[in-house]
Amino acid sequence: MGVRAMVGMSHPELGDLDTLVRRALAEDLHAGDITSLAVVPEGMQARGRVLAKQGLVFCGGPIAVEVMRIVDTRTHVAVLVPERTLVDSGAILAELDGSARALLAAERTMLNLLQRVCGIATLTRRYVDAAQGRCRIVDTRKTTPGLRALERYAVRCGGGFNHRNDLGSGVLIKDNHIRCVGNLAQAVRRARERSSHAHVVQCEVNDITELEQALAAGADAVLLDNMDDEAIATAVAIVAGRVIVEVSGGVTLERIARLAGMGVDVVSVGALTHSAPAVDLSLELDT
Amino acid sequence: MGVRAMVGMSHPELGDLDTLVRRALAEDLHAGDITSLAVVPEGMQARGRVLAKQGLVFCGGPIAVEVMRIVDTRTHVAVLVPERTLVDSGAILAELDGSARALLAAERTMLNLLQRVCGIATLTRRYVDAAQGRCRIVDTRKTTPGLRALERYAVRCGGGFNHRNDLGSGVLIKDNHIRCVGNLAQAVRRARERSSHAHVVQCEVNDITELEQALAAGADAVLLDNMDDEAIATAVAIVAGRVIVEVSGGVTLERIARLAGMGVDVVSVGALTHSAPAVDLSLELDT
Amino acid sequence: MGVRAMVGMSHPELGDLDTLVRRALAEDLHAGDITSLAVVPEGMQARGRVLAKQGLVFCGGPIAVEVMRIVDTRTHVAVLVPERTLVDSGAILAELDGSARALLAAERTMLNLLQRVCGIATLTRRYVDAAQGRCRIVDTRKTTPGLRALERYAVRCGGGFNHRNDLGSGVLIKDNHIRCVGNLAQAVRRARERSSHAHVVQCEVNDITELEQALAAGADAVLLDNMDDEAIATAVAIVAGRVIVEVSGGVTLERIARLAGMGVDVVSVGALTHSAPAVDLSLELDT
Amino acid sequence: MGVRAMVGMSHPELGDLDTLVRRALAEDLHAGDITSLAVVPEGMQARGRVLAKQGLVFCGGPIAVEVMRIVDTRTHVAVLVPERTLVDSGAILAELDGSARALLAAERTMLNLLQRVCGIATLTRRYVDAAQGRCRIVDTRKTTPGLRALERYAVRCGGGFNHRNDLGSGVLIKDNHIRCVGNLAQAVRRARERSSHAHVVQCEVNDITELEQALAAGADAVLLDNMDDEAIATAVAIVAGRVIVEVSGGVTLERIARLAGMGVDVVSVGALTHSAPAVDLSLELDT
Amino acid sequence: MGVRAMVGMSHPELGDLDTLVRRALAEDLHAGDITSLAVVPEGMQARGRVLAKQGLVFCGGPIAVEVMRIVDTRTHVAVLVPERTLVDSGAILAELDGSARALLAAERTMLNLLQRVCGIATLTRRYVDAAQGRCRIVDTRKTTPGLRALERYAVRCGGGFNHRNDLGSGVLIKDNHIRCVGNLAQAVRRARERSSHAHVVQCEVNDITELEQALAAGADAVLLDNMDDEAIATAVAIVAGRVIVEVSGGVTLERIARLAGMGVDVVSVGALTHSAPAVDLSLELDT
Amino acid sequence: MGVRAMVGMSHPELGDLDTLVRRALAEDLHAGDITSLAVVPEGMQARGRVLAKQGLVFCGGPIAVEVMRIVDTRTHVAVLVPERTLVDSGAILAELDGSARALLAAERTMLNLLQRVCGIATLTRRYVDAAQGRCRIVDTRKTTPGLRALERYAVRCGGGFNHRNDLGSGVLIKDNHIRCVGNLAQAVRRARERSSHAHVVQCEVNDITELEQALAAGADAVLLDNMDDEAIATAVAIVAGRVIVEVSGGVTLERIARLAGMGVDVVSVGALTHSAPAVDLSLELDT
Repeated sequence: MGVRAMVGMSHPELGDLDTLVRRALAEDLHAGDITSLAVVPEGMQARGRVLAKQGLVFCGGPIAVEVMRIVDTRTHVAVLVPERTLVDSGAILAELDGSARALLAAERTMLNLLQRVCGIATLTRRYVDAAQGRCRIVDTRKTTPGLRALERYAVRCGGGFNHRNDLGSGVLIKDNHIRCVGNLAQAVRRARERSSHAHVVQCEVNDITELEQALAAGADAVLLDNMDDEAIATAVAIVAGRVIVEVSGGVTLERIARLAGMGVDVVSVGALTHSAPAVDLSLELDT
Repeated sequence: MGVRAMVGMSHPELGDLDTLVRRALAEDLHAGDITSLAVVPEGMQARGRVLAKQGLVFCGGPIAVEVMRIVDTRTHVAVLVPERTLVDSGAILAELDGSARALLAAERTMLNLLQRVCGIATLTRRYVDAAQGRCRIVDTRKTTPGLRALERYAVRCGGGFNHRNDLGSGVLIKDNHIRCVGNLAQAVRRARERSSHAHVVQCEVNDITELEQALAAGADAVLLDNMDDEAIATAVAIVAGRVIVEVSGGVTLERIARLAGMGVDVVSVGALTHSAPAVDLSLELDT
Repeated sequence: MGVRAMVGMSHPELGDLDTLVRRALAEDLHAGDITSLAVVPEGMQARGRVLAKQGLVFCGGPIAVEVMRIVDTRTHVAVLVPERTLVDSGAILAELDGSARALLAAERTMLNLLQRVCGIATLTRRYVDAAQGRCRIVDTRKTTPGLRALERYAVRCGGGFNHRNDLGSGVLIKDNHIRCVGNLAQAVRRARERSSHAHVVQCEVNDITELEQALAAGADAVLLDNMDDEAIATAVAIVAGRVIVEVSGGVTLERIARLAGMGVDVVSVGALTHSAPAVDLSLELDT
Repeated sequence: MGVRAMVGMSHPELGDLDTLVRRALAEDLHAGDITSLAVVPEGMQARGRVLAKQGLVFCGGPIAVEVMRIVDTRTHVAVLVPERTLVDSGAILAELDGSARALLAAERTMLNLLQRVCGIATLTRRYVDAAQGRCRIVDTRKTTPGLRALERYAVRCGGGFNHRNDLGSGVLIKDNHIRCVGNLAQAVRRARERSSHAHVVQCEVNDITELEQALAAGADAVLLDNMDDEAIATAVAIVAGRVIVEVSGGVTLERIARLAGMGVDVVSVGALTHSAPAVDLSLELDT
Repeated sequence: MGVRAMVGMSHPELGDLDTLVRRALAEDLHAGDITSLAVVPEGMQARGRVLAKQGLVFCGGPIAVEVMRIVDTRTHVAVLVPERTLVDSGAILAELDGSARALLAAERTMLNLLQRVCGIATLTRRYVDAAQGRCRIVDTRKTTPGLRALERYAVRCGGGFNHRNDLGSGVLIKDNHIRCVGNLAQAVRRARERSSHAHVVQCEVNDITELEQALAAGADAVLLDNMDDEAIATAVAIVAGRVIVEVSGGVTLERIARLAGMGVDVVSVGALTHSAPAVDLSLELDT
Repeated sequence: MGVRAMVGMSHPELGDLDTLVRRALAEDLHAGDITSLAVVPEGMQARGRVLAKQGLVFCGGPIAVEVMRIVDTRTHVAVLVPERTLVDSGAILAELDGSARALLAAERTMLNLLQRVCGIATLTRRYVDAAQGRCRIVDTRKTTPGLRALERYAVRCGGGFNHRNDLGSGVLIKDNHIRCVGNLAQAVRRARERSSHAHVVQCEVNDITELEQALAAGADAVLLDNMDDEAIATAVAIVAGRVIVEVSGGVTLERIARLAGMGVDVVSVGALTHSAPAVDLSLELDT
């Protein structure tokens, strides 16, 4: 932790950070920072520390760098903790040197972004630890509008995997599709015939009958939705490794170990992104 | 609940919904909806119901309308529940009629937005109920980047009030400002002299000494930060109604009633927006 | 063709047409239309016909509608030809009624968009016809920057299929990846272990040795790159239907039938999108 | 070619490259690059070469620089070939040094842009060579929506000239305008009276009668549209150098020399931008 | 004035009003309208009148319509005065019916736009009247950043003409270009040889010597910059109608008639757009 | 003035300059700079000076820097005059070194921005000087759409203060609100009860009766609108320092001293932003 990790400015896997951060800053700086303008002398330099006020899995260093770069290119940012690191309460995550007004202008936007990605990484890590490497923990498309790329990154930083990114990056036949077609098997067959060879065809099933239909129709993967442990165990036995088995619905931390033990391949958890509590961070300045 | 509330398309207090929803949809529909394209027949019509799968305070009807309008102007949306209504699990919140492909394309984006605003309104309501009308519950600037206008609206729908919107809409002198100036009283005086007459000057204080300095220097409001109940009671007595007293830090649902009883004017709660769990909603289609 | 096909305004599979068309119009109308302003009387009404000046596969009706809607909501547009229809030279594709100035302002932007999508659909249809239903013709990511959604739609309108949309919607291991890892088999194994269960793992191979490595390492699909017919035949025999076989590189219209006959599943053709000649269209006005 | 040409980052004549490239990258990197993320080790450095796989007129060096800058500011780009240079197949156009993941993320977007501008420059050069300096080859407004600035630049790099950029940068009276006004001469007179002194008034004519009307009414330039060689020769003789004579419609490479020989000033060719085949380029990495 | 002029929603000559108005509204409604939210009952309907508080040339009706459409599509707007009309103080320019909160949210943005365009039209009209039809009054590129299209429209509404719109829509050689080339005649010749046939070549001259050089080198138009009346008269005599003569610099209302009398073709006035005082307008509501 | 003031690139109080300047440049450089392209040799270097052609209060140095940075990052800009300085005609405000084409491309956009902010600062200074420190001069929301942040900055540079930034940053009850509610006192009471504790409640009054109602209802500040001097004197006496007294309407430079002498706290002047004449600036190049 005493070693400064250099963090560059460009991170394709985080999407267009420049645009996202500019938009976030615009919410808070629409009319400038009138407190600093009145109170803090023009040109005053300061040093700031981003502190963890609780144990957490850190990620988002490049976000902190980007926020400061956009507010004031002359600020120096040193991210002290590598991405994906579990730190204790009190850890200094980053140090900032620059204009006091710039640090204060950037503070809330930076923390709002970091507290969310670290919150997601921290919650994901708990699920991943519970799975003990016996099944994958994956996210869902239940992400915060506007922040999907960051939230999926945070899931990976917590040791999770990503599900398909969007409606165009994988075929997943759900109840509503089946109701439209009238028949699970036909839905799977239509998907096989009409979707790209570049995509997996996965089908949501609610019981063993549907599972057998999905397998017979040629699904590459199944999603056992809201099934109880017993039904899941039966399903895993029927599948017998021929296709990927994903479980979702009603997944708690407590249940993960049990699911992992049954031979499920993947457990998807919407709460990773839609309900992860923010972690507690603060920025403290010296002048 | 059986009466259809007409919801119009324009809601200045929700900000530029058109832009926000377009951006949210772009995340999910970047490459179209390949499942529906393959599985659901072109031109098929469907009816959908948005359901509450838990008790919740509903809000965001105009958001649902806007999402559907942008995906397909020909969809008919009827929001069945007025904004700010507490509903039980199972309630039908809205009905949608239109192209099945359009409903499926819009589904996740609509639910991701609604589950968040309803989640915030629902959590806020719990705090507001605990305060029993004896003090205000207000939000903070700890909002989700990109969604501040919606989240502040959701807080109001839950019965809460908003704090200043951004760094330019109110003067709030915090620890970091005081460290820059070196002296709380001078910070307040500079704010008085140099900020607009159109703004309240509020000052964060950590103890009774600071409180007295802030009052002497002419603050219009004080923010008692992370003080215990005893100190807060003393502070309220000292202020004696001359300025607004806000409390923040370590505020739990349990503590609200106590704070309200002490004569505190305002309690601000970051968790309303940064850690409200999403509520559970679903969209069910018939054809 | 004598029957008017109603075309609605919202087409999720075409992406955010509103934004795209607005941007296209801005290129041409940055400073207004000075010729019409000077020459055409204010308020004059006109009727226009979009004509095919060559045989072509038509698509893009919703684009025409959207261009006119943005230029002048009061224009009436009737698209006369259903999407995906093969028409002869001279066919009237659409009729427009509205302000003469609006029609003239929209003309070039509308035609520039239509001539491209129809050009792609028309070229794709020739490849698809050559394949006689024995293999799929698919596009590549070699699309025009800014127009990918429209171009992929045009490929589908010509009877082709789409490959993965973007770098995040499928795993395709190519020469450059293998050079980075140093070893094809290891690249495939890393992809299997580290990418989402929601994605196919496809691997490009240059010869039979690489093909066998890819199969052994567990690829879901292979891409035979720039191999001659003899090698392709051998490859198809080795694969024996276990995984998808795609061919790319040096694919001409003449060679398609031969490839289709060999049992190849998919032939990808970059030229569909990067080099399809525009079709010849015109707009003719009456007043 | 062995000398490295420094290419700077700012090129007003290419328009707002930052915005254009960001938009292009967003199409391909919407969900990150999942193949590289899985397969290529984090932090691995690589060197890449952009190669011409056919003879071509090179242009777009600043585009390559800008794409890499936006993906990863730490990449070093050396463009080895000056703009407007004719190179042989096999030429190394540029060298890139940086993170392997960044080079792979940028690859397709960079090549999609370069293959188009080089394609246009290469085709333009063929027309320009055919004209042997005896008449100008100019583009039209039949450009790719979103890419007009780049395509016009490419035409100039091939030795061509640009026609007016947009509907606001020159007066060009066409058939549709004349139909609105009912009379060619009146259209030209209205243009003369009502348009800015800063603009040329050009008029499209279809035969000798119209030509004479246009001249009598005071046109600054005429556009002979779809006229045969004989009529064009007559027209040139009638004009006798008093105004600019432009020819368009049915212009093939073979016909250029003939037109140039007749004394035509300008030949405009829509195909330069709407139908130029992409050139064949590749990016090859070493690590 | 008693007759309601219907005003449509789409006006190509005003540019992308939707985007411009959305941006303007965002400045004022960033955090909603907290006064109306607190004070005005939800759902209250009101009627408003836009009043001229001084004599003025009205224009911008479509802007008022667009502002209200974006704030609340349910508002009815009737523009009572045709574009380009001179009205007296007290005239009712438009009537609005709709939600009181929507009218109040739109008020300032609407008036800020209208007061500027009417201000420009009103000032332009004074110059045009002074010229008594003997020379053209034209604007310059000294416009307000972001509002050029509207301001040029306002100039036309006042009876003025527009100069070139931007640096790409006309060739105008100025002092700085000549200093770069070292020689006026060479600058004009380079422009003739290298710029598009679709553009006028105009050259700024400071005295009679330069005028003669410009004419000899083939300029299509000259701009007499900051020359006194005597020199202008000489220049007009020398030019003798061969090319357009524009005068700029030090042009006051008083001097216009004199310049017009000398035979100058065009007088350009930067103040039309950069220093026109706003006109006085107000919105008055009834409920 | 002989000392070079370093000007950095990031200025939170000016808002998102990058976006604003890019948009402004796009208006002028939409189709490139065809004059420079034709006339000025590629690669030519030049030095430019921005000159004051009249006495003025300078501000906007960071704007000049940002315009040049976006047009060409290789340009060197030295702003020679500190913000807020009063300079004489002839002063050199900034020096620029870089590509001649880049300087010419940036010239008009830079000057259009500077002439406006300096114009506002210069006019504000005249009002501030007239007030002799006895009352504050403040701006209004009557700003140019798109430029509010810059214009408010310019007011501060001229020695003025800002009023609330937007409809969400302060409560100001005006005539139209009172007409909606029917009663001034009730409007003030509703505002007190329902708006945030973080906002001042100010109320516009037209006469002494209304003033007394506003005071009784608990307004924090009053705005005396269009009252004559006598009434204002009475109002100041009645208020007797209990709340802020602002005067607006019919405020001329001549009247300021008188108002200041009466004990008014704040005088707001719409003309500062909506009708300040542009100052006269020029850019002169050497090569």
